[in-house]
Amino acid sequence: MIGLTRRTMLTGAVAAGAATALTAMPNTMVRAAAPPAGKQIAGWYRMKVGTTEVTVIAEGARISPLPDNFVRNKSKDEVVAALQAAYLSADRFMLPFNSVVVNTGSKLVAIDAGFGPGTLAQSNGAMGQGQANLAAAGIDIKAIDAVVLSHFHGDHINGLVTDGKPSYPNAEVMVPQPEWAYWMDDGNMSRAPDALKGAFANVRRVMGIVGSKVTQYEPGKDVAPGIASVAAHGHSPGHTVHIVSSGNSSLMIQGDLTTLPQLFVRNPGWHVMFDMDAAAAEATRRRLYDRMAADRLLVQGYHFPFPALAYIEKSGTGYREIPIAWNPTI
Amino acid sequence: MIGLTRRTMLTGAVAAGAATALTAMPNTMVRAAAPPAGKQIAGWYRMKVGTTEVTVIAEGARISPLPDNFVRNKSKDEVVAALQAAYLSADRFMLPFNSVVVNTGSKLVAIDAGFGPGTLAQSNGAMGQGQANLAAAGIDIKAIDAVVLSHFHGDHINGLVTDGKPSYPNAEVMVPQPEWAYWMDDGNMSRAPDALKGAFANVRRVMGIVGSKVTQYEPGKDVAPGIASVAAHGHSPGHTVHIVSSGNSSLMIQGDLTTLPQLFVRNPGWHVMFDMDAAAAEATRRRLYDRMAADRLLVQGYHFPFPALAYIEKSGTGYREIPIAWNPTI
Repeated sequence: MIGLTRRTMLTGAVAAGAATALTAMPNTMVRAAAPPAGKQIAGWYRMKVGTTEVTVIAEGARISPLPDNFVRNKSKDEVVAALQAAYLSADRFMLPFNSVVVNTGSKLVAIDAGFGPGTLAQSNGAMGQGQANLAAAGIDIKAIDAVVLSHFHGDHINGLVTDGKPSYPNAEVMVPQPEWAYWMDDGNMSRAPDALKGAFANVRRVMGIVGSKVTQYEPGKDVAPGIASVAAHGHSPGHTVHIVSSGNSSLMIQGDLTTLPQLFVRNPGWHVMFDMDAAAAEATRRRLYDRMAADRLLVQGYHFPFPALAYIEKSGTGYREIPIAWNPTI
Repeated sequence: MIGLTRRTMLTGAVAAGAATALTAMPNTMVRAAAPPAGKQIAGWYRMKVGTTEVTVIAEGARISPLPDNFVRNKSKDEVVAALQAAYLSADRFMLPFNSVVVNTGSKLVAIDAGFGPGTLAQSNGAMGQGQANLAAAGIDIKAIDAVVLSHFHGDHINGLVTDGKPSYPNAEVMVPQPEWAYWMDDGNMSRAPDALKGAFANVRRVMGIVGSKVTQYEPGKDVAPGIASVAAHGHSPGHTVHIVSSGNSSLMIQGDLTTLPQLFVRNPGWHVMFDMDAAAAEATRRRLYDRMAADRLLVQGYHFPFPALAYIEKSGTGYREIPIAWNPTI
């Protein structure tokens, strides 16, 4: 660490050499213009929770016009106004996706699996970045011991499969028991509204490929040493969140407790189109957000803007997310 | 772009295959624990302002205990309370540094130069990352046509020199005329208080090495096509900010108009220890921040947390910075 004083800041930390006064001399050159670089940085960010290493892995973002019915119980105009107040575009509405890898020291655990690279081409590279970002972060997908799922929506499970094969060849796939029970129940599938039939088929497609690796866990139990699970049903029947703890530090990995924070953290009573039981989702959200705010808990949100880490505080009738200050070290 | 509907979100964008019900089968393996990766991602972030490509280059951050007199006109307790309210540490107080490279299409222009790699070792890699991050961003330092300086404090100019030689071998070094006039005046140097003598010596050391490349510009004039300069004196006698414009889009590159936003954007009347004329700095800050807020102008702040891009709005008696939502594309 370098002492921070007015003197060191104004001079910089490098020792000052001999002072030499100089007259300015103009210097003009004609050179070829540099081409634009055109490429965004890879999306991964690392931090320590106590002695546990946590890496957020960006899956990218879906960029599309705001759907008319994105918030079920609010008019599109109200949603557009909220986006504008948050300096976000409704024409190029951006819904980000970010999973997490936790190295507890004894186990390498991914939480949620993203879309997988199959979505890269159709999204012009905006989605499906997760596996490339995992590699860029120095994590070998073969070294991952377990993929813990929060729930079975496609953006969280499709990345379990790449080109028809398991993406994480050596990983156990740990699924919340009530989520498995709901989606694998043929009666539920046959009674599902049309809008959900594709989701049922998708779950069974994915689980058909990774099923031999699946173990079910009871929400409320630990999924690994230092990673607790907490039932947070509503968004889906078995939606579950996770808390990484080490020493005195904790991180809540909140899954889809809220989706885009600028809309749903600020307005916990707004119901995103993806909430399967909106009333239960809202009650769960308020209960856990009250706790996050009271405990000043650091939160990772799957749909928060990368690096998808924020603190939560009460604000007006809702909450406000305070993004962490980026640390250039870990 | 992929349409965003409840159906596509729940299933994911990949076509759903045949549904196969499966029974869960436990699968346990004993394998070696993965070692921690231990490394943070490089710090660069790219965006377009109209057709102009802007890349923020992280120089890293100074991490040290909060100095007693960091805010001249507030007690340390008040500053610690403000940090705590912003979820920041006073024990590991982090002051980030971020410069910018602008590719106007015809000219590749860096704005401020960071500390340079000489500070890497002494800061355990937290500072002096700029040149490595520039390379990671795909920008050849030899291709930079001009380095435009906001002012002459060490954290903005020392990176002009590496190992005693100019770091940007083909770049003109463009300096605000009043900044040059102040620091290069021998009378000012001889009258300077002791705390400033090192800064004078440092300026002359750096300019002694790059002096033949220096041209002076008048604040208020364009420094390159599409990059205007605006006088913003107070933090230093010739402190100057810059506005990149292309089409209908603009970006304010604010230099040290405020330093750490969680303290000085929220409290524009607080005087950081580095402001050389605190009253003038505050007046300039309020005048330009009123304009940024009214115009909903995107702002890059040298001392904002990476990626150091935010919108400014009025809040209470001060302002609030709203960090941009990270875009995984450009």
